[in-house]
Amino acid sequence: MSKLSYAIIGSGAVGGLYGAMLARAGHDVHFLCRSDYEHIRQHGWNIESHWGDFQLTDVNVYRSADDLPPCDVTILALKTVKNHLLSGLLPKPMGQSGVVLVLQNGLGVEASLSEHVGVERVFGGCCFLCSNKVGPGHIRHIDYGRIVFGPYSNSDARLDLAAKIGDELNAAGIEAQCSDDLNLVRWRKLMWNIPFNGLSVALDASTDKMIGDDNCVDLVRDIITEVHRAATACGATIDASWIEKTIDHTRSMVPYDSSMRLDFLAGREMELQAILANPIAAAKRAGVSMPKTEMLYQTLRFMQNRSNKEGSKK
Amino acid sequence: MSKLSYAIIGSGAVGGLYGAMLARAGHDVHFLCRSDYEHIRQHGWNIESHWGDFQLTDVNVYRSADDLPPCDVTILALKTVKNHLLSGLLPKPMGQSGVVLVLQNGLGVEASLSEHVGVERVFGGCCFLCSNKVGPGHIRHIDYGRIVFGPYSNSDARLDLAAKIGDELNAAGIEAQCSDDLNLVRWRKLMWNIPFNGLSVALDASTDKMIGDDNCVDLVRDIITEVHRAATACGATIDASWIEKTIDHTRSMVPYDSSMRLDFLAGREMELQAILANPIAAAKRAGVSMPKTEMLYQTLRFMQNRSNKEGSKK
Repeated sequence: MSKLSYAIIGSGAVGGLYGAMLARAGHDVHFLCRSDYEHIRQHGWNIESHWGDFQLTDVNVYRSADDLPPCDVTILALKTVKNHLLSGLLPKPMGQSGVVLVLQNGLGVEASLSEHVGVERVFGGCCFLCSNKVGPGHIRHIDYGRIVFGPYSNSDARLDLAAKIGDELNAAGIEAQCSDDLNLVRWRKLMWNIPFNGLSVALDASTDKMIGDDNCVDLVRDIITEVHRAATACGATIDASWIEKTIDHTRSMVPYDSSMRLDFLAGREMELQAILANPIAAAKRAGVSMPKTEMLYQTLRFMQNRSNKEGSKK
Repeated sequence: MSKLSYAIIGSGAVGGLYGAMLARAGHDVHFLCRSDYEHIRQHGWNIESHWGDFQLTDVNVYRSADDLPPCDVTILALKTVKNHLLSGLLPKPMGQSGVVLVLQNGLGVEASLSEHVGVERVFGGCCFLCSNKVGPGHIRHIDYGRIVFGPYSNSDARLDLAAKIGDELNAAGIEAQCSDDLNLVRWRKLMWNIPFNGLSVALDASTDKMIGDDNCVDLVRDIITEVHRAATACGATIDASWIEKTIDHTRSMVPYDSSMRLDFLAGREMELQAILANPIAAAKRAGVSMPKTEMLYQTLRFMQNRSNKEGSKK
């Protein structure tokens, strides 16, 4: 069976790392890069990873999505705040028969994409990793790295393709796990992302500061409990022990600034729609209210608006 | 009928202003002062007020509560965070037959005092004013000034004494209104204090910044609605139109930093117990949950703890 080809939309800390590892393993990989295009065309990728450092030269890099060739798998690793651009980015790499693998935070992207490209062509996954882009074409991957992913629609044919992608990722050195319950995977990640991404901005605190304060831990637990209740109502049956496990796991993490906090501190748009608004709306449709999560969203919207106003004054 | 005598416990922006106005009107007024004792003993009070500026010399000022004479009315205008000191502060000025008028923020102080001095000797009230202590013995009162107060226990004798106190306050130039429903007065004030004091710290924003953002107004409305529901459950029947009126009123206010925000910015203890924890607990006893108010409290506790830690490092 021939190796799959990959397009990488969003060549940052996630897409750059995984794409470079696939290319190193001999796959045809095509990167869409905006700001780093010229640098990567000349110098390739410089990957520092706790899985092993490497350089990758002769990279297939493109400045415009229109120049991308059709690929078997298009990995979508843009921030969700850029998703209004997708209708212009996906047609060329997805071609007639390619599929898209959404490696983005939050909820709702697969559903939205399915309406445009068809449910059978959509896969999604969650990444558990600490990785940053530290310079042009330069990724520093310091911890974890696992992808848990699966088809948005669970037909046998889709599960077969997911298994093939999973085998290729693992063969390329990426810890990948295939799941037949993407909804559950997404909600379990939200049990961390909603409290810890959200409160890290609302409280201006890294994980260790949050976990070190009893009032904050109470609040984190209340929010995780809301997310857990919403997950159940939305068909994702997660054992209640994961509420406490999520807190304990964070207690043993190294002090960490969430991606949302890094975005906010850098004056970038936060992924509020995907990580907060969509789950709140899904829960509401399922008859469950999430008052503290909603307050977190209202708080972050206020902070984002203020940040935008201050940014526009500069 | 002879004029009542007054003791002032907490000679700051509230106690200093009202006490000085009562003394100017010829009442026997006795001030307990800590930090400003020496200054006031020598120079008296310097009152700047939109009701009229004045100086007051030959002030009866005391450094220790043990030196205060028994007075008819002891006005309690300390911050509630100092209330653990009350058992040492009240016995001398209240004497055998004096009463206490609690002009503090929040909920629960009258109930707690009643257990110690007897329900018949407790009055309470809310102050609606913009006033600051800007230097030793120097008060700047820039807007409003009304006191709404009443007996904690509604016997006829207590209502008669409240009416007499009200007449004296008004005769001294203070806008005072007597109420036979102190519980309602307190909860209506909480409809402003909880959202606007609390969020001004949690969001680091003055009233105009909050009221200028739609997400924040939604959050303010949600919290006021929780307070209104709690008030109803606690026996304070407030017309629902006050939810929107409270927002509209704030919209037309001058940009204002709440007392809680000023306390926080100055590194002082915030009145979280009286303004947030006690109302949440009262609502809970009445079977009503206040999730967003509770989250606000959890957030502010986290911020207070962090501030205390940072303060102790200096």
